[in-house]
Amino acid sequence: MRGAESLVHTLVKGGVDHCFANPGTSEMHFVAALDVIPGVRCVLGLQENVVTGAADGFWRMTDNPAATLLHCGPGLANGLANLHNARRARSGIVNVVGDQATYHRPFDAPLTADTEGWARGVSAWVRTSVKAETVGADAAVAIQTARTYPGQIATLILPSDSSWNEGGVVGEPLPVAPPAGLDPQQVKNAARILREKKNALLLLGGRAMREEGQRLAHRIEVATGCKVMSEIYNGRFQRGRGRLPIDRVPYAGAAAREMLKSYEHIVMAGAIPPVAFFAYPDRPSFHHPENAGLYVLARPEQDVLQALQALVDELGAPEAAIPDAGPRPELPKGAISPESVAALVAALMPENTIVADESIGYGRAFGRATLSAPPHDWLPLTGGAIGCGLPLATGAAVGARSIGQGDRRVLNLQADGSALYTVQALWTQAREKLPVTTLIFANRKYASLLDEYRGVGANPGRTAIDMLDLGNPDINWVHLAAGMGVEAAKAETLDACADLMRQSFKRPGPFLIELVI
Amino acid sequence: MRGAESLVHTLVKGGVDHCFANPGTSEMHFVAALDVIPGVRCVLGLQENVVTGAADGFWRMTDNPAATLLHCGPGLANGLANLHNARRARSGIVNVVGDQATYHRPFDAPLTADTEGWARGVSAWVRTSVKAETVGADAAVAIQTARTYPGQIATLILPSDSSWNEGGVVGEPLPVAPPAGLDPQQVKNAARILREKKNALLLLGGRAMREEGQRLAHRIEVATGCKVMSEIYNGRFQRGRGRLPIDRVPYAGAAAREMLKSYEHIVMAGAIPPVAFFAYPDRPSFHHPENAGLYVLARPEQDVLQALQALVDELGAPEAAIPDAGPRPELPKGAISPESVAALVAALMPENTIVADESIGYGRAFGRATLSAPPHDWLPLTGGAIGCGLPLATGAAVGARSIGQGDRRVLNLQADGSALYTVQALWTQAREKLPVTTLIFANRKYASLLDEYRGVGANPGRTAIDMLDLGNPDINWVHLAAGMGVEAAKAETLDACADLMRQSFKRPGPFLIELVI
Repeated sequence: MRGAESLVHTLVKGGVDHCFANPGTSEMHFVAALDVIPGVRCVLGLQENVVTGAADGFWRMTDNPAATLLHCGPGLANGLANLHNARRARSGIVNVVGDQATYHRPFDAPLTADTEGWARGVSAWVRTSVKAETVGADAAVAIQTARTYPGQIATLILPSDSSWNEGGVVGEPLPVAPPAGLDPQQVKNAARILREKKNALLLLGGRAMREEGQRLAHRIEVATGCKVMSEIYNGRFQRGRGRLPIDRVPYAGAAAREMLKSYEHIVMAGAIPPVAFFAYPDRPSFHHPENAGLYVLARPEQDVLQALQALVDELGAPEAAIPDAGPRPELPKGAISPESVAALVAALMPENTIVADESIGYGRAFGRATLSAPPHDWLPLTGGAIGCGLPLATGAAVGARSIGQGDRRVLNLQADGSALYTVQALWTQAREKLPVTTLIFANRKYASLLDEYRGVGANPGRTAIDMLDLGNPDINWVHLAAGMGVEAAKAETLDACADLMRQSFKRPGPFLIELVI
Repeated sequence: MRGAESLVHTLVKGGVDHCFANPGTSEMHFVAALDVIPGVRCVLGLQENVVTGAADGFWRMTDNPAATLLHCGPGLANGLANLHNARRARSGIVNVVGDQATYHRPFDAPLTADTEGWARGVSAWVRTSVKAETVGADAAVAIQTARTYPGQIATLILPSDSSWNEGGVVGEPLPVAPPAGLDPQQVKNAARILREKKNALLLLGGRAMREEGQRLAHRIEVATGCKVMSEIYNGRFQRGRGRLPIDRVPYAGAAAREMLKSYEHIVMAGAIPPVAFFAYPDRPSFHHPENAGLYVLARPEQDVLQALQALVDELGAPEAAIPDAGPRPELPKGAISPESVAALVAALMPENTIVADESIGYGRAFGRATLSAPPHDWLPLTGGAIGCGLPLATGAAVGARSIGQGDRRVLNLQADGSALYTVQALWTQAREKLPVTTLIFANRKYASLLDEYRGVGANPGRTAIDMLDLGNPDINWVHLAAGMGVEAAKAETLDACADLMRQSFKRPGPFLIELVI
């Protein structure tokens, strides 16, 4: 058995049944093995950041790692930005990076690069499999790593001779360690703080944002009178009617500090301290009050649902009905604005929509309005590396389909500037006939950056405007989507957008709406 | 003076007058400084691999480094693949990567990444400028590094507080060391080999491929009877009538081994040993005969033109007229094939065309036919990281314009699969009204990979075909270009392609031709 064949068998045995791929010469034996050994569905992306972002979306919907197939160091490099986002989402991924044959590498052929070095910044585990005999065992460790709570990135580098040589041995699935154990003292301490202190906040992160975590958090807030919030971004936030209406810590520093200013005690459940995305002159690095006490209920690598349950038990917090989120917004009328678009999205999204959110600045008002929409999953940009939305939507749709939820619509709320980084994802959506509606907010500028620029205290001159503006020429999204095989239309009014959204939700495949804002 | 302002002043003083940019929040003070301090022309790219590939093309045409402006680790990561190509082309580039404020970095905000770690694999020099006071001095070292023969990549990481703080000091330009000194013994030895041995080859690389190097090489071949060839890829190859018709070592192993099999003595002038791009089972890693002697006339970091001149002097090789390249090909008739397209390109390209070549497999026959075209510069994909052609064409056009050669047409010979990695470059061509004709070879598959796959010995099944085929749906290049603001048309015959090429050469701005092959 070739090393490549042992790898495919190991993936299948380990439950890795999808591979997002952008292969190259050094991976041909792996491609051949995927071709003849059933059990791994391959999905092609036309650029590697599409591949890695899709693997992130797949995990977020399934809690099961997909493999990626990448070509040499530069192929990995092209996908690092969305691996960075996946790492911040705590998604599990098994990267397979084909590379130079072990004996050929020292000769520094043109495509030779420091593949391991580039992998390290995003990977919990990196290994170059130096002979066919160990590929299966190495792949089993990669899968084990990817599945380790809450989800990790493992990168297996596969030299072409390890792939083509005979001697491969299938790796048996390895047991996945349970999440790091809870400290009973943390639970007791959190209970004491929340019971005794006024102005206490329970800050949720990670899997605490799943429905089960919210129910537990609500019992805690009813029992103690604390406030519940969530950290700004997590991998998957289950929201909408029947879920707990939870405010996220805002992106903007002033708004975040305002929201957190009255909390003197912050208990973190799967969350980290509320750090600002960026530093600004004379502003603090953290959003919470300087003197606030921070207490850990569960670190990200501890089982936060188990921790919340233990806290409920410690508090003796009774069952509590989730409060009603209020009426679903009606279809808005009038001008296009962040608020009216938020209402539009809330009014129209089908039940169980999967929202892939890379709306950046325009979408900062979307949170509140959509809390009373039907139940849905919200997948945000977690790591700030833009270009995540379209790939995330792609992978989420593939993931949902893989677990029998192929009827769920994916709604990608997408800033135009960010969309341009990974526009190739549209082609994969077309090829796979994925039920994705992409709603492009076409303001034709890097609007967030213009805001930031004004924050510097200057009015932009010609040079600055040229670097922050996407006009001259305007991107034509309808043409761009058509070029990738995705039907599209432009909307310049709320009504037109509503019509297109409704139509798109009935389609089996993808559709793109360019909303001129 | 802010650190950011000292940086711009240092760039201007150091002769770095172009900045290819994709800025983000942490670079706003740098953008503000570029806005108010004249002397640096900024060119926006919509994705970072466009930015870095353009900087590569700029250097190749000007021998002068451009700056790039990138946002944090993930922004750098997005541009690594074309930095890898630039490193292989030995291009000089000054990367400026904005990053987290020094005091904010330890808090691991979402966009925090190992920027230095990612930079190292492509950079000869990496430094994080930790305070405003040192930004100017650090930038001066970066420029010095970029200019160091034959050209290097320097990466300056600029934390936002180093950028916004007062205390900046303009860095004085630093002297650039001359190329590494020649070893007279190398020259004598090379002369002896070429004079005494039959079956000797002079293998050119780097700047030996400039016109001056070719003239010297021709004197050597006339005086000694050796054969002259060039390594497969170098940064810029000056070709066409009046230049020496030089064969490149082919990409395909069998053809390369055939071409080199009779050479027992290989003198390398700026070239490295002819290594295969990839290893294959039971094939050698190098293309030259196992027992051939390899002799160094000039390493890549030595001045190869000086070395060739010294060799000419040592040999007493007289002036020699460059042989005529034969008649320019006539406009071909008949079917579309690599050979007829090569003839078409040779028949129609205007004098002094700049060819950005990412034609991959389809273009392997282009070399011979174009030797008798008018004089032109040929910029190939050097590092094998695909997605280089469109950015390279973009930067070459900007570079030519910057040195008063704005009337030179850029012809981008471009494989379709590779073009999809950096299609956003078209927008920059439209915005900057660059005279670029992009000729897309639309075969709708990763044709080179299909060949490689067959080399594995298997007929592709459904899974393999789906990973190597770009159809289903077909990319519509005319739509895609229109979406980016570039006019385009499709050609399905040689005649139609010829008409479109001729028309495009008369235009002031970009044009794209989708040639269905």
